[in-house]
Parts: sequence; structure tokens; C-alpha cells
Amino acid sequence: MYQSSQTQAAAARRGEITPAMQIVADKEKRSAEFIRDGVAAGRIVIPCNKNHRALNFTGIGRELYTKVNANIGNSSLSGTAEDELKKLASVLEYGADTVMDLSTGGDIELIRRSIISSSTIPVGTVPIYELVSRYGRNGINEANLLQIIREQAEQGVDYMTIHAGLLKKHLPVALQRKLGIVSRGGALIAAYMVENNAENPFYCAFDKILEICGEYDVTLSLGDGLRPGCLADASDSAQFGELEVLGELTKRCQQANVQVMVEGPGHIPLDQIPMNMQKERTLCNDAPFYILGPIVIDCAPGYDHIVGAMGGMIGAFNGAAMLCYVTPKEHIGLPNDDDVKRGITAFRIAAHAADVALHKPAACDQDNAISDARAAFDWEKQFALAIDPVRARAYRLNALQVSSQPDLHGSEYCTMCGPDFCSVRLSKIIKQSIKNTL
Amino acid sequence: MYQSSQTQAAAARRGEITPAMQIVADKEKRSAEFIRDGVAAGRIVIPCNKNHRALNFTGIGRELYTKVNANIGNSSLSGTAEDELKKLASVLEYGADTVMDLSTGGDIELIRRSIISSSTIPVGTVPIYELVSRYGRNGINEANLLQIIREQAEQGVDYMTIHAGLLKKHLPVALQRKLGIVSRGGALIAAYMVENNAENPFYCAFDKILEICGEYDVTLSLGDGLRPGCLADASDSAQFGELEVLGELTKRCQQANVQVMVEGPGHIPLDQIPMNMQKERTLCNDAPFYILGPIVIDCAPGYDHIVGAMGGMIGAFNGAAMLCYVTPKEHIGLPNDDDVKRGITAFRIAAHAADVALHKPAACDQDNAISDARAAFDWEKQFALAIDPVRARAYRLNALQVSSQPDLHGSEYCTMCGPDFCSVRLSKIIKQSIKNTL
Repeated sequence: MYQSSQTQAAAARRGEITPAMQIVADKEKRSAEFIRDGVAAGRIVIPCNKNHRALNFTGIGRELYTKVNANIGNSSLSGTAEDELKKLASVLEYGADTVMDLSTGGDIELIRRSIISSSTIPVGTVPIYELVSRYGRNGINEANLLQIIREQAEQGVDYMTIHAGLLKKHLPVALQRKLGIVSRGGALIAAYMVENNAENPFYCAFDKILEICGEYDVTLSLGDGLRPGCLADASDSAQFGELEVLGELTKRCQQANVQVMVEGPGHIPLDQIPMNMQKERTLCNDAPFYILGPIVIDCAPGYDHIVGAMGGMIGAFNGAAMLCYVTPKEHIGLPNDDDVKRGITAFRIAAHAADVALHKPAACDQDNAISDARAAFDWEKQFALAIDPVRARAYRLNALQVSSQPDLHGSEYCTMCGPDFCSVRLSKIIKQSIKNTL
Repeated sequence: MYQSSQTQAAAARRGEITPAMQIVADKEKRSAEFIRDGVAAGRIVIPCNKNHRALNFTGIGRELYTKVNANIGNSSLSGTAEDELKKLASVLEYGADTVMDLSTGGDIELIRRSIISSSTIPVGTVPIYELVSRYGRNGINEANLLQIIREQAEQGVDYMTIHAGLLKKHLPVALQRKLGIVSRGGALIAAYMVENNAENPFYCAFDKILEICGEYDVTLSLGDGLRPGCLADASDSAQFGELEVLGELTKRCQQANVQVMVEGPGHIPLDQIPMNMQKERTLCNDAPFYILGPIVIDCAPGYDHIVGAMGGMIGAFNGAAMLCYVTPKEHIGLPNDDDVKRGITAFRIAAHAADVALHKPAACDQDNAISDARAAFDWEKQFALAIDPVRARAYRLNALQVSSQPDLHGSEYCTMCGPDFCSVRLSKIIKQSIKNTL
């Protein structure tokens, strides 16, 4: 049986503390041993392709701070290489922890090479997109997919989504759903299986995929090709049948010392999220759960960054390790640069809310500091401590500009209440009044 | 002991089904008896001042659909009467269930009269704002507050926030907090108590307030003057000490046949929200809990509509009956018309997500219908079923305009994936392919 000796998992199982583990430990306010033991057990991954030179190491696992992934990438209808690099700059500025290039049109390789060379955070891809873009749907076969995976691994991709858990036996239930198969990768593979009466080629070639990933330390992200696309399809036997296969594949990765995470839904009502998180943890040996949303209602197109962040917060609180953002354009079109910023911010809020509620190390420090700044009317400090300083500052300026006293930048109140009704100002007056009567 | 005979509560306890109860029953897909019994028990309120002619009846209670309140109103620094009426139009268009006029500056009475005459939804106020705006902080006394409450009741205000639960004994703890007292009403009353060494005048005059409310069927909303203003202050003895007093006052309202709800926090970390909801239900005899947010992190100014909606969703899932929206300008300035729209929409999403998860009657109908429209690529139907059709439509147009094929309005894909990668389109192809091989 194949076992890599070149991955973070291999090093951890030999008892080594690598520079990557030490950096992750410092960022996470944990000991290096804690990180090493988590990597050895498969509870933590550190996606770090040895050919990704610009990388700043990041750990992913439910015990660490909840991470946020941002998807960028073009389609055949929209998004130039220039657009996508602008989005990458926003991804880094707005604080996403990883980025996926999901390009499906144009010069995919050029876009990916540019992203990898500019990105200090782990870069993920979905290799079947490049395969179909290059060879068409009829080009799906084992040789082509191994070729694409090897090329991307050589270029420095840190993690790859592989839809290997979706099998022929799952299709009858999946195709009866209200929304069928909504994962792009899942739908492409399902079409291949039906049209060729063949099993999933990623499943069949899994051992060979492991060998490539083990050579470069590419982390596998086991894709959920059968995630539900609406509330009515949530938690059905197609979704959980695939998850069982992902559990088996997770164990094969871990035995091979290939780092692995598992991807999750999708559209899930709030009350079903804890059960979904628990099921992954049990079936997949506590491998990091990387979830998309979940989206908790179907009827808010234009606001799915909020809807997804709500579900993401509950997912993270119940053990998800990384949240894949959803942008306001979800279900409508390709996100632009502003959508990327809105998506990242909503999900960073969700991640932080879960980390606070889970009492992760020093999770409340930023909140306590901004509250002190609020009590002291230190507006500049509030902006500096805000998750999005640009918007916080712009909104205060905007509110002042339309007021009757636009020159109150350093004032001890805002336009919400004005001086006579400001509760924070009144609290200070009360304290002074008590001091004077003593 | 005073008992009103003229309120919905009085009618319900006599066993009557009023037109208001019947209308609420129809809206809520419940029997009229269910509504009547809820009103009689105090679990449901129907705020409906007999002088509010334009009112369309709305029920509030944890068993009914979760309601959303929008706050409008000016301050001394910002917001003309015209601005506030424009906001009211947005409040009605964007589907808030109740509206509060929190004006604290200018011609408060004119603004309120205009709002009441134009509003088809219940209108709430905080009478101490008009009192202090008219007479100054030194004008706080029993005679003035009863006068203002009576004037507003005569004008048709459906519910009033009265901060009667905050007592002198609570102040030492509250003033030691990181952010002190952040409720405007609470801070005004605390300043009065400290400066005059007197007890809370709303508490002292409570029986007389009940008589005015009983005469017009004004619903009392017992304000939480000591709600925490940051995570560090959450769930302290000041907050819960006041809640105990609110529990006593709730029972006095219910005995007097005066409809009553209880207001709640504030800034509360996610993990403390269920306990906070449970505590209100126990202490306040299951009176509807009307919560502000809760805001689950402190460090996202500019996004507090999202932060508050996340907490609101969990609050509603754990029994809150109505969510007071928070706008993106919270902690920064007075919201403008666009902020009102963003706030309402985020909180309607939260309310709906909770209702879906609680399996309220037909709660998923809209989600199922939009998912069918999505599967059928019926864009117009998707827009019509969206919580905010204006934004959904604008975003699709925007995405198409920047694409290489801007004329695809009715197309069976969008710019996210284009035709070759659209999973919904592929699902249709697969189904057709299976049909052809049979």
C-alpha cells in the first residue's frame, strides 16, 4: 500500500515538528505539539504544495480558528485574467484564509499560474474544470484526469477538490430531487457515468491520485458532488450515501499520509445543521469539514452571502473547520470584485462569531478592544479594529455629511442619537455625577 | 385592582373571537381559537390602538411567524420629517411587520402623526424620547411622563417601550461594565435616578400607565434599559436583575388585561442566546420576547445588520417572537433609507430561516416554489418569489451586462458557469439521456 514520506502528515507521524507546524502553532496560539498531534491524527491539515513558494502556512481543523475560503475564477461568459487578479488582491486584503481558482473558461493555466505566484494563502482548484474546458465532456477519462492533476500539482496547487465519492448507485435518488445535482463537478461526472455506463473515474483512479498528491503534498478536498441544492433536497440518501464513500476515501488518504479534508453542503435548514456536522465527524474520522454555506433558506437571491454566513456560523459552532464563502451573486451570476469583498466579510463574521462562542484562545480580544474604543469615543481605533475598516469609516463620514453638523469627526456622539440622547455619553455623565457626590 | 375590559386580552379572556383575532388567524394559518387562547394566556399580543385607523392586524408570539420590527425616526442632528416618511414607505415595501418611530429631535409629534396615519402596520414609540426632547432631562417626572403617554395613546400609538424594570439597586453593577448603560431610555432614567436620588418614575407610576394603556389597548413593551452593549457585559447580574423585575411587571400587565411584550438584548455571544431566551420565557410567563439582534460579535461596524440577524435567527429559533432590526449604520450614525432596506431584509431572512427550522405552517412554501422556478430556469418567477425582487433582478442584469453575451435574459444558464458548466442544465441533460436509453 502506498504511503507518502514527504507530506506534513508523514512528518507528524514520525513525531517531527516542521517549520509549517511551528508557524501554524504561533498563529493559532497553541503549542507546536498540539498542531503536530492534530496533523498526525488527521484532525488538522496544512495545505502546502512544496512548489508554492509564496505560501504563508495556514492550519485547518475544528480546534483551530474557523477559516474562510473565497472562490474566484472566470467562466466562459465573464471574467478576464485581469479581473481575476483584481479579485485575488481583494481576497488577500479582506482576509480570506484560502482561495480557490474555479476558472472554467479562457486561459485557465495562465490565470492559475498568476494566482499561485501572487498568493500568500493556500490555493485550491477543481481539476475537472480544466479537463472539461480543455478536452470537452467527451475527454473525461482516467489518463486525462491524472495528467491534469499532475500538471496542477507541479504548478503548486495546495489543495484539489476531487469528486470521487459520487457513484453510479447514488444517481437514481439524486436525479429524482427537486433540483437534481447542483455541484458542477458532480453533474459533469454524473453525465459521464450515465452516458458511458461507467463508474466514477476519480473513484477508480483514486490510488494513483494519492500518489501524485503524496509527492507534492497536495491536500485532497473530497468534494460533495451530491450536495443538496435546495431545502427540499437536504439530508437525503443520495447526500449521505456519498458521505459514506467519502468516509472510506478519507481513511485511504490518511493511511497514505496524504492530507485530506471533506466538503459539505449546501442548502440545509438550520435545524439539520448540527446533525450534518456530527455525521461527517463520525463517518470521516474527524477530518476537517469544509462546508459551502450552508444556505438556510432558498428564497433570498441577492443576499446569499448573508444566508450562507448564517448557516456557516452554525456549522462552525458545531465543528466545521472551514467555510467556503457564498457571494451576493450566488444563483444569479459570476461575482465581481465587490461581491468578493461582501462574501468574505460576511463569512469572516460568521467564523468569528463561532470562535467566540466556542471560547477559542483569545477569541474575544478584538471585540473587547473595540468596545473599549467605543466607550472612549476613539473613532480611529474603532475603524482600525473593525473587520472592514474601509466600510466603517465610509459609513461614519456618510452619516456626518448628511447631518446638520458635518464637522463632528472627533465628537463624543454620532448622528444616531446626537449629544442629548447618546447613552455612552450619558453613562460617562452618570459616573462623574456619582464621583462628585462622594 | 385595575382591569381593562377594552383590550384584545380582555375579550380573549371573556372567550370572544374579535375581528382582529380572526384576521391574525388567517394570516398565521391557525384557527381563531388558537389565537384567542394565546392572547388570553398572554403568549400572543395583537398591538392595535383603537385610534389607529389604518391598521392591518398583526399577531406577535413565538408560535406565530417570527416578526421583524424596523426603527425609523430622526435625531437632533439628522433626519427631516420628509426623510422619515420616505423610510416608512421603504419599511412597508420591504415587509417589516411593525415600525417604531424613535425620533428624538425636531417636530416629533408631526412626524409621529404622519407615520400613524400612513402606516398599515403597528406603530411603536419610546415616550421618554418625546418627554426629554420637549422638557429636557430635568423635566423627567411622573406628571410629564403620564401626560406624554396619554397624548401618544390618544394619537393611536399601538405599542410603547417603557423602561420600568431598571431600578436604583441595579446601577452599581451596570456602571462598572465595560460599556455601562447603552439603552438611551435606560441611560436617561439612570441619570435621573442618580441625580435626584430617586426610584425609576416609570416603575413608580406603573399602575397609572396600565390604566392609560388599558383604555386605548396600547400594548406595553417592557424595555431592557440594562441590555449589554458588548460581549463582555453580556448576561450579567444587572441584565438579569432587571429581567426579574420585568417578569413581575409582565404579570401585573397580564392581570390588568393590558397586552404586554418584553424586550431583550443586545450584545450576546452565540452560545449564550438559548439560555437568554429560556430565562425570559420562565421569568416572564411566556410573554412574547422582542429582541434587538442579538449582536453576536462587537468588531464588525458597518455590518451589524448581518451580525444582528445571525443572533436574531438563533433567538427566534429558541423562542423569540419578534426581532428588532439593526441596520448597517448601527454604532456609526443614523440609518438612511437604504440602510433601512438592508436591515429589514437581513432580519426577514433570519426570521424566515428560524420559521423554516421550527416547521411553522407552510413555512417552506416560498422556498419550494423558488427552487422549482430555479430548476425550470424561470427567472421572472424567481424574482417574483425572492425576498427582495428588486435586488435579485438588478444583480442578474448587472452580471449579464459585463459578460461576453449580454443578451441571455431568458437563457438556461447564468454567467456563473456558462452553458457547459451549468449543473442545473446538466441535470436536465442527464435525465433526458436516461429517458432515451430506456
